Amino acid sequence: MQPVLADSVRLTGDGVLILDRRQFPFERNWVLCRTAEDVARAIVDMVTQSSGPYFAVLFAMVLKARTLEALPFEQARAQLAQTALMLENTRRTNNALRKATKVVLDHVDAARDITHALAGAEEGDRRYRAKSQALGEHTANLLPDNATVLTHCWADLYLTETVRAAQNQHKTLRFFCTETRPYLQGARLTAETLIEMGVDTTLITDGMGAAVLQSGEVDALVTAADRVTMDGHVVNKVGTLGLAVAAHAFGVPFHAQVQAPDLQAPTTEYVEIEYRDGAEVLQVLGRPSATPRVKGHYPAFDVTPPRFVTTVVTDRGVYSAGELDKYYEGEQR
Amino acid sequence: MQPVLADSVRLTGDGVLILDRRQFPFERNWVLCRTAEDVARAIVDMVTQSSGPYFAVLFAMVLKARTLEALPFEQARAQLAQTALMLENTRRTNNALRKATKVVLDHVDAARDITHALAGAEEGDRRYRAKSQALGEHTANLLPDNATVLTHCWADLYLTETVRAAQNQHKTLRFFCTETRPYLQGARLTAETLIEMGVDTTLITDGMGAAVLQSGEVDALVTAADRVTMDGHVVNKVGTLGLAVAAHAFGVPFHAQVQAPDLQAPTTEYVEIEYRDGAEVLQVLGRPSATPRVKGHYPAFDVTPPRFVTTVVTDRGVYSAGELDKYYEGEQR
Repeated sequence: MQPVLADSVRLTGDGVLILDRRQFPFERNWVLCRTAEDVARAIVDMVTQSSGPYFAVLFAMVLKARTLEALPFEQARAQLAQTALMLENTRRTNNALRKATKVVLDHVDAARDITHALAGAEEGDRRYRAKSQALGEHTANLLPDNATVLTHCWADLYLTETVRAAQNQHKTLRFFCTETRPYLQGARLTAETLIEMGVDTTLITDGMGAAVLQSGEVDALVTAADRVTMDGHVVNKVGTLGLAVAAHAFGVPFHAQVQAPDLQAPTTEYVEIEYRDGAEVLQVLGRPSATPRVKGHYPAFDVTPPRFVTTVVTDRGVYSAGELDKYYEGEQR
Repeated sequence: MQPVLADSVRLTGDGVLILDRRQFPFERNWVLCRTAEDVARAIVDMVTQSSGPYFAVLFAMVLKARTLEALPFEQARAQLAQTALMLENTRRTNNALRKATKVVLDHVDAARDITHALAGAEEGDRRYRAKSQALGEHTANLLPDNATVLTHCWADLYLTETVRAAQNQHKTLRFFCTETRPYLQGARLTAETLIEMGVDTTLITDGMGAAVLQSGEVDALVTAADRVTMDGHVVNKVGTLGLAVAAHAFGVPFHAQVQAPDLQAPTTEYVEIEYRDGAEVLQVLGRPSATPRVKGHYPAFDVTPPRFVTTVVTDRGVYSAGELDKYYEGEQR
């Protein structure tokens, strides 16, 4: 059975239905986005995150394409490309959104037919799931039976496929997960889903990671990456860096999961780090958690240098942070 | 003017009045503890923390002494010693509570008069404030003008005296403070008090410390220590370790503040780390913040090894973590 969150962005006849991750699992509300613009707003507002925006963008492209069917192809194509740009800009750090728009546009272009957006989105959906599955298997191969894993934030399909692969290999995993302030993705999404999958899970606050890594209880730190540069920098949810540095200090390997390193990002200079509204740091689930007199600071992502990264796990296998060129070996660029 | 929290545990005719730090600054409720047992419960329940329990224990000893005045001295003394033990056991990691009971018992013993508990408590109060002031001055001396300081949790008088000393030296400090889950001491107590003192303060979540340290914006990491062992291990609120390791990785000095290293703790084996109820990790200000299906883990303190500690700042001046014996040089042990 699929975990709830693994199928939480859906295309319907009316629009795109998105499970609201800001309240899950306390409430299970679905937000119906009737237009691509609605989807963009939902992504900016964190209705969905992690892998969610990738699927949401695929389907938003279909929503837009539906409105363009009566137009001449070139005109429709131009408008769809505009929408693609708008969707890519909702969150700038993760490069998956660019891939989502590309697979849809590629299908439309190949057929010179705007209605082929749907086939493109379906292909994008299939491809993302297949790559996540491959990556999950490669990750599970790195973990010994009875391993204790520390993870951060919510790695979505990368996590669920890792757990599924480990279970297929008859390995038992135990997880520590960080709560991941300010949105509590770890406390809500990761913890709930791991338990849904039958995994022994323990929650810690974001400040406890180093102590748990020092304790000797953790066999591996495993997180997703929103982006990995060709020179081996891992860009992921803020907090990853501190855990990676601590893991390195205490001899625990750090495996960062990404479908592929980003050819368009040779170094971190090519990656835009998203800064969100500092006010988001001053609340928990909508309720004030800090003195109203203070200002907040919210870099949504941090950058872990390659010296703190043990391996980068991709759909094609496992690489050290210093040899990511090999991922593309033999491939036409 | 004193910051509110610098005078938030008071002895009255009725009992000990303690400002409830669990709600401050949202609400300013004072809890009246009529007996030493009430005080002990308040400490366990986190009504006050950081330096608060030291003062609360001083005054709880006086409350107990008041009930013993009619007894023969030896009998009264024995009962007061029992109460001392009970109070010391409320929180086991910080050694200040032991000092609080000792100064009261020493005064009682010197006079062979149970009513001298009050003089002992007053002396303990004066001594703690004087040492904090000296330590604050030594810390301010380490910080350049216009320094940006990262701090964690709520260092209470050590922090306020550092800021006061810097202000007396006409230095401007800017602070980042971590929110410090699960009790949010940083977001509530530290942020509110720094702003009360006119300091430019920015709040981050506990996971953002490493990113801020990596950014080059921070000149020093400064935290209190609940205990420093003679071999230079710094025991403090969980989260300190991760910040210290990151500070070390990114070349930022870490200054740990403690009145004195603990002669009774040659190594960490002599320090009991308090584990609190894991359920405290699953809530924020009393409201659930995690799936109810997960279990929490709550080591209240962590231990930073000396290799990650730049200096230990005491009331007698500044020492490297490797030379703490010097603190006691020339002193009879």
